[in-house]
Amino acid sequence: MSQTISPKLTYKTFTFETGLDWDAGRSGSLSAEGKKALRVTAPPVFRGEAGQWTPEDLLLAAVDACTMTTFMALAERAGTNILSYRSSAEGLAEFVNGNYRFTRITLRPTIEISLSTDENKVREILDKAHHNCLIGNSLSADIDIQATVHKTA
Amino acid sequence: MSQTISPKLTYKTFTFETGLDWDAGRSGSLSAEGKKALRVTAPPVFRGEAGQWTPEDLLLAAVDACTMTTFMALAERAGTNILSYRSSAEGLAEFVNGNYRFTRITLRPTIEISLSTDENKVREILDKAHHNCLIGNSLSADIDIQATVHKTA
Repeated sequence: MSQTISPKLTYKTFTFETGLDWDAGRSGSLSAEGKKALRVTAPPVFRGEAGQWTPEDLLLAAVDACTMTTFMALAERAGTNILSYRSSAEGLAEFVNGNYRFTRITLRPTIEISLSTDENKVREILDKAHHNCLIGNSLSADIDIQATVHKTA
Repeated sequence: MSQTISPKLTYKTFTFETGLDWDAGRSGSLSAEGKKALRVTAPPVFRGEAGQWTPEDLLLAAVDACTMTTFMALAERAGTNILSYRSSAEGLAEFVNGNYRFTRITLRPTIEISLSTDENKVREILDKAHHNCLIGNSLSADIDIQATVHKTA
């Protein structure tokens, strides 16, 4: 007797696209359809231009923002009200097996909730957001989330 | 008889940091010290705001720009003159082992060189840039570079 297992869910695939136009040195302009261009350069330590976003900044910003947007979507679905959310991302790049790479990224969100909101529930949602974050799941670095949750009257 | 092997090189570590401040919905403001703030949101398909950079865009932009800045540094060191460099990055996100992640990122640089520049040398430098790119080395996705090299009189 044979049994056929039919998957109940089908998963979509998504594609995203960006553009880049080099101008001089280690600098250029990034583009995405319908969005404002963004100047990019190497970090000063790698002889880039000062005061402009770098690939390293963009990677850290991407993982921090993805965790936030995923958290907000899950909090909304759970009916959990969030008063504020600020965060910072710190990335450590080390030389491993012949190349530099980010080995550890630490996110430090500070989340403000009302007195009546369940802090444990908020921490569970953040944990789920961490595991569901598309960007975090695309990185080989360890991602550590050090969250602070405040209650405000 | 024992032999002690002393490493000849020591490798530095680097840290990078960014900030994030949520305002409403799935949107917020990204910051990096001394740099202009950048608005971020979820992609429209995940109910973000239209016309703003998303974490997915930022990740693709980071790997494309890192490959370019690494390429420019190596080309400069090799004394190879580059006339122009434009590129696009396309990322495919798929559902794998219970989560969405980028499984493949394709970079399509178009590089313009003079008639007297060795095209094979340029392709070798690009290949080296690909393997030395800090961002690419931090991702679990496969990164495919499809380069076009043009000669201009």
